[in-house]
Amino acid sequence: MNKPLGSKTKANIRVVENGKIRTRLDNLTTEEPLEIRLISQQRTIAVTMRTPGADFELAAGFLFSEGVINSKKDIQRMSYCVDESIDGQQRQNIVNVELREELIPDLQPLERHFYTNSACGVCGKASLEALHLRNCAIIPQEPIVTPEIIYKLPEKLRAAQGIFTATGGLHAAAVFNTQGELLNLQEDIGRHNALDKLIGSALLSDELPLNNYILLVSGRSSFEILQKSTVAGVPIVCSVSAPSSLAVSVAQEFGITLIGFLRGERFNIYTGWERIKTA
Amino acid sequence: MNKPLGSKTKANIRVVENGKIRTRLDNLTTEEPLEIRLISQQRTIAVTMRTPGADFELAAGFLFSEGVINSKKDIQRMSYCVDESIDGQQRQNIVNVELREELIPDLQPLERHFYTNSACGVCGKASLEALHLRNCAIIPQEPIVTPEIIYKLPEKLRAAQGIFTATGGLHAAAVFNTQGELLNLQEDIGRHNALDKLIGSALLSDELPLNNYILLVSGRSSFEILQKSTVAGVPIVCSVSAPSSLAVSVAQEFGITLIGFLRGERFNIYTGWERIKTA
Repeated sequence: MNKPLGSKTKANIRVVENGKIRTRLDNLTTEEPLEIRLISQQRTIAVTMRTPGADFELAAGFLFSEGVINSKKDIQRMSYCVDESIDGQQRQNIVNVELREELIPDLQPLERHFYTNSACGVCGKASLEALHLRNCAIIPQEPIVTPEIIYKLPEKLRAAQGIFTATGGLHAAAVFNTQGELLNLQEDIGRHNALDKLIGSALLSDELPLNNYILLVSGRSSFEILQKSTVAGVPIVCSVSAPSSLAVSVAQEFGITLIGFLRGERFNIYTGWERIKTA
Repeated sequence: MNKPLGSKTKANIRVVENGKIRTRLDNLTTEEPLEIRLISQQRTIAVTMRTPGADFELAAGFLFSEGVINSKKDIQRMSYCVDESIDGQQRQNIVNVELREELIPDLQPLERHFYTNSACGVCGKASLEALHLRNCAIIPQEPIVTPEIIYKLPEKLRAAQGIFTATGGLHAAAVFNTQGELLNLQEDIGRHNALDKLIGSALLSDELPLNNYILLVSGRSSFEILQKSTVAGVPIVCSVSAPSSLAVSVAQEFGITLIGFLRGERFNIYTGWERIKTA
């Protein structure tokens, strides 16, 4: 894991404590827009506010999650913008994606509506009646894990995040194997960007589907988190916080074990409890 | 404040604790799509995943934050969908907005790009070079408040949220006066929806701009939170968590006092410390 470049920004701040004020140099989480352009189609397909780092993974994960591509082979090349009319710094905020020549991506779902969003992915692109996911497979039943494996995931995530960054402002998504070993960690100011980076990273290393892995996300489990997990084939999705009603519905529908409020030696199972083996 | 209808969904869950498993009836935060339609323009302008409740406020706040409308008068009528071909339950997920007849809304910025989002508002609609906000005024210097007023805001928010809902899955945005009295609280699974509900509520009661009020949000302060705060004219924005680099930039640019990590008798001031009066 490489420390993302540019993920921190220095700032002089004032600290107020017990009525007294002092100044301090602080680290801020960097938030910058990333524009994803499809070169052959001559269009911008997305602009997302993200924390710089793993930008190609983010672009690949986004395209895969949204169904624009279906495999690593669909991407011919990714590069930062080289347009000299654009300021040097900002070129790093534009990723150009060249798709496989024969591929004619279906951008229709992305075009159908404008959409806004509270961690909202597919919702706005389909009509309300058609809140269906793409041709996703029901997740296979394996693996089975013990509560002891699950209990320890947040501490492992925190330890890894501590090494990673120190701004306190980043969401994380991490993949573990069924022995509870952390295999990949991605961070971002946005929860679903962290997950897109993770999925994109797996895609680019030919590790999809993630049928034998455990996912832990730092925030809430919303519809979009479960939608992305489904697309990536994750059987067990954990978070330290609450899931939404729609997240539970998606997990139910696609056979995902959804775990929430994972804190200390305790967690809730919302769906798919058969994968958790208690004594 | 009315308890939002439909904000909770019952579910049977399993609780794993110390290796033992038991079942329990639990409350989930409801997450449902809301489609905002402009009737005269015959188009859907947004679909957002939201927690039902204060839907008209959410629609109004969204339209105002995005610059589609500039005042309450621009809205002639709002109603839930009455299309009988749509299932009764789902009609509550569609808000029809009838704009003032003469108004020709500028939908260009919303159309320019597809955009994705990590709590990303205007970013995708403008080009990366033009991350400028609409014709927002610099926030006036008043008010000045003491740290003691600020310290107590999170506790007041939590107390009010405790009455409001009990799912542990909701973000909140609240407006306080400079004496620290809570005047309005809105909740949603999405941070910016909570803020849109708050701003929409102020718009519909002719209380904008919020030049003499304090805003507290439950999550991080991202670019979009600050963008919406700017549009609403809020001079002091507080959160219990971290701001992003871009949030700090917006606050700086528009003269907002940005406070983060507000916990106990302690907080950080990122910009506009002149409004905080220490001994």
